[in-house]
Amino acid sequence: MVMPACDIPIPKKIKLAVRSYESQKTIIKLNGIEIGGDQVVIMAGPCSVESREQVLEAAIVVKEAGAQILRGGAFKPRTLPYSFQGLGEEGLKLLAEARDETGLPIVTEVMDPSEVELVETYADILQIGTRNMQNFPLLKSVGRADKPVMLKRGMSATINEWLGCAEYILAEGNLDVIMCERGIRTFEQITRNTVDISAAPILHMISHLPVIIDPSHGTGTRSLVGPLAKAGIAAGADGIMVEVHPHPDEALCDGAQSLSPEEFKFFMNDIKPIIGAVNRRL
Amino acid sequence: MVMPACDIPIPKKIKLAVRSYESQKTIIKLNGIEIGGDQVVIMAGPCSVESREQVLEAAIVVKEAGAQILRGGAFKPRTLPYSFQGLGEEGLKLLAEARDETGLPIVTEVMDPSEVELVETYADILQIGTRNMQNFPLLKSVGRADKPVMLKRGMSATINEWLGCAEYILAEGNLDVIMCERGIRTFEQITRNTVDISAAPILHMISHLPVIIDPSHGTGTRSLVGPLAKAGIAAGADGIMVEVHPHPDEALCDGAQSLSPEEFKFFMNDIKPIIGAVNRRL
Amino acid sequence: MVMPACDIPIPKKIKLAVRSYESQKTIIKLNGIEIGGDQVVIMAGPCSVESREQVLEAAIVVKEAGAQILRGGAFKPRTLPYSFQGLGEEGLKLLAEARDETGLPIVTEVMDPSEVELVETYADILQIGTRNMQNFPLLKSVGRADKPVMLKRGMSATINEWLGCAEYILAEGNLDVIMCERGIRTFEQITRNTVDISAAPILHMISHLPVIIDPSHGTGTRSLVGPLAKAGIAAGADGIMVEVHPHPDEALCDGAQSLSPEEFKFFMNDIKPIIGAVNRRL
Amino acid sequence: MVMPACDIPIPKKIKLAVRSYESQKTIIKLNGIEIGGDQVVIMAGPCSVESREQVLEAAIVVKEAGAQILRGGAFKPRTLPYSFQGLGEEGLKLLAEARDETGLPIVTEVMDPSEVELVETYADILQIGTRNMQNFPLLKSVGRADKPVMLKRGMSATINEWLGCAEYILAEGNLDVIMCERGIRTFEQITRNTVDISAAPILHMISHLPVIIDPSHGTGTRSLVGPLAKAGIAAGADGIMVEVHPHPDEALCDGAQSLSPEEFKFFMNDIKPIIGAVNRRL
Repeated sequence: MVMPACDIPIPKKIKLAVRSYESQKTIIKLNGIEIGGDQVVIMAGPCSVESREQVLEAAIVVKEAGAQILRGGAFKPRTLPYSFQGLGEEGLKLLAEARDETGLPIVTEVMDPSEVELVETYADILQIGTRNMQNFPLLKSVGRADKPVMLKRGMSATINEWLGCAEYILAEGNLDVIMCERGIRTFEQITRNTVDISAAPILHMISHLPVIIDPSHGTGTRSLVGPLAKAGIAAGADGIMVEVHPHPDEALCDGAQSLSPEEFKFFMNDIKPIIGAVNRRL
Repeated sequence: MVMPACDIPIPKKIKLAVRSYESQKTIIKLNGIEIGGDQVVIMAGPCSVESREQVLEAAIVVKEAGAQILRGGAFKPRTLPYSFQGLGEEGLKLLAEARDETGLPIVTEVMDPSEVELVETYADILQIGTRNMQNFPLLKSVGRADKPVMLKRGMSATINEWLGCAEYILAEGNLDVIMCERGIRTFEQITRNTVDISAAPILHMISHLPVIIDPSHGTGTRSLVGPLAKAGIAAGADGIMVEVHPHPDEALCDGAQSLSPEEFKFFMNDIKPIIGAVNRRL
Repeated sequence: MVMPACDIPIPKKIKLAVRSYESQKTIIKLNGIEIGGDQVVIMAGPCSVESREQVLEAAIVVKEAGAQILRGGAFKPRTLPYSFQGLGEEGLKLLAEARDETGLPIVTEVMDPSEVELVETYADILQIGTRNMQNFPLLKSVGRADKPVMLKRGMSATINEWLGCAEYILAEGNLDVIMCERGIRTFEQITRNTVDISAAPILHMISHLPVIIDPSHGTGTRSLVGPLAKAGIAAGADGIMVEVHPHPDEALCDGAQSLSPEEFKFFMNDIKPIIGAVNRRL
Repeated sequence: MVMPACDIPIPKKIKLAVRSYESQKTIIKLNGIEIGGDQVVIMAGPCSVESREQVLEAAIVVKEAGAQILRGGAFKPRTLPYSFQGLGEEGLKLLAEARDETGLPIVTEVMDPSEVELVETYADILQIGTRNMQNFPLLKSVGRADKPVMLKRGMSATINEWLGCAEYILAEGNLDVIMCERGIRTFEQITRNTVDISAAPILHMISHLPVIIDPSHGTGTRSLVGPLAKAGIAAGADGIMVEVHPHPDEALCDGAQSLSPEEFKFFMNDIKPIIGAVNRRL
């Protein structure tokens, strides 16, 4: 009885992000949480910070249900300039307040190299969004920051290209990079994107970096968030990022994929047996 | 604590394959096995039947490791006319002999409407391959057969188109249709295809038909078969189809994605905790 | 001043469909028309044969506007079993009548290996549809027919896979194969498919077979048929297949992409300067 | 004889980039050149500026062959941090010197919002690369610049998303936006990308902005640059961007798709009849 040997080629020109550089998995320690270790880390919260009440309510809800990290967007990349663009620094302050209230570390997106310094004064993890995966000045900028970086996969990026982007961050000296699979673009119409679950085991074989799955953006569909989260955990993901909104029907963005507080409690309960089955813990 | 309600629209023009026609899941009973019920059904065996020794050895191996159904191709769709095209009827006879030896029912592909009658005298489940998903004369032909049909998703088919193909079979009177997700084509290069795990929960929400995941063709990579199988089971798949070859390095086709007997034993052991975690059984 | 040398690798395992087998372009002669020669051949007509009046009216219209071949479907592959499936042999007879009336040769689809003999008694060119590109029994069957075969590219087929399918036909002895690019599936939503114009020059470099572009299925949009036809001709296509319906708004299928008689006249006029610019003729 | 009416829906939430805002085509005047008018504008030059000799030689070659604009990268977005990243400001100075020498205006990429001011002191057109299509801070920044912007389509962007990005620039007050189709990602392996020729007629129907086709990046294959350029012009493109290198085999990037000087002369000669056929001029 043997496990199949790794048969995926390690990209040759990548030096730091690959297993040949670091055979042990990278574990990112944050406030008692270990991303990439035994834990399955749940990052939950609203798509965007909309108001003090909304973000505090969301933070308390996700904390009580067992999430370890609070997510929330202050700078929002939107398809059109006329859509809500986020509260900016005001949103960062509200996130920090929610952290003070709940003790949950914060992950939030940064979009502009010149704003990295500002965002890292508030955030615990800097998120690079899918549209900015190959925004190299931004990657270099967060590579010089003192906070871990969560790098989302580009909508049509290959895994090797994505690792090349992690390399940009690592090469600047920031070794705390988390990879986040958030779905790739296909012809399928029911889902907003197609979650490439194979990204988790592939990255674990050829890289030492932790991998998070985001089934909210990956499917765009509330009822699919749970099943895809379970799939990701079963395939070895180190965590799940999930959108939770106190009142999804009133959300300024991504309401259709956000779980309500009651749905998020169900979600947390639903994933527990799978977490146990892969010998991990929340 | 509530589960999110189904928010995926049921395709309006499909009558028989959808939940509005049949709210209970279809369970296909076969030789004491229930596909679509509590069991997670494992269909295992070689890509193609190559010889009496090979198929018997494979059948015994997969039976002993706990598989419930034997897979093997007698008619093989190959990219080029010069590749091994399968043993034809001789292959069907060898499969039947393996069934006699082990008691495992057989699933095998049929490619030509005029051969359906021949194949169903040997096979327990008729497989429609990905290249023939929209081969409508073939679908009508198996729709008139007395054996269950496993319908693989086309390489670039949407889920609604795939259900439309199931409808062709159901409309001819054959109600025993199994859907098999085998990966879709994307730009990713590491994997042969991208397994769309969301197909399982989506189909379970909008259709009553059982769903099988095929991580062997879905990834084309031996070391990914286990992780993707676990992902599929966690997301609710009713079974897994997996290629096993007594000697993968000598396989006439798909050796790179076939598990060895020892690897298959590991696989069967590896998926058990996930099966338990979703309250199902082998 | 030099033309760039061919830098596209010829697929090694393909023997007959490639330039290394036949350095001269294949020219298929049919009723005074030369497909693959100096002419740009226009195949026009309705998606499906609906009635005697419709097909005769369409045939006269396209003939008068300058088309050289009449297209029309008698056996229609449809996404659902409840859609109009074509008139079958009755449709073939009406096509033959339209040929008698106008002198235009007929191209029509065959879907079932057992119907090839029937279809070739009526048709001048046998069409293999996109859904059947890798229907190998069907390819072998038309490979034994006495009529030229037009092989549509599969919706997500690579060019090398498509050539492999041509090889199936050639290997059975039928050397008159026409390749038809009809659009591939992408994430773009405005068009039904994305016409891969590069297919024409690529095939001309690595193969000797004629290439037709089908902008009607390729775009699914009436106003794009002309621009994409001109693009195809400019890139070296040997012909264009275009849907024309006497009354598009009443069409039983594909009305949205069918040109009206007046629009088809405009189309024929519009492509002429491009045909001249590449030193070809209608 | 009538042209089919526009049957492509104008995206409702886009205000400035659409035909309903401006029914006349936008014409961008630059140094006697009119982009979006009768001319077909050729932008040619090396992928990246490598040295004084290289860029001057390239500029003279493309000028003599008839190109109207010089392209060349000073800031290069590369998949890995270890690849040549461009000469930076030194590269901009060399481009300006080449402009002084030849009179050709310069188009060059800007990647960082904080560098827009620097780049526009040298460049005549600011290019936004495919990886930065949805880099919204960058779009806003060039939207406040005084130079025209050429916006490349993202590798997997829909046309409506791409127009949304143009809207970001227009909304900041910069009305001189040029759209550049550079190929989208598909499963096809022979070409680096698939040029979506339909983008040109679609944009012309629903938007007033000029459209350029880039067959060099679109195909990644030297021998396909000419055929795809001709296709683009035939479909109505307002110009072509093409990579030309004095010595393609020594190029620091994209040598495989760069034309040599002799090949570029052939190219310019080859496209002339098509330009005439669509009633335009160089």
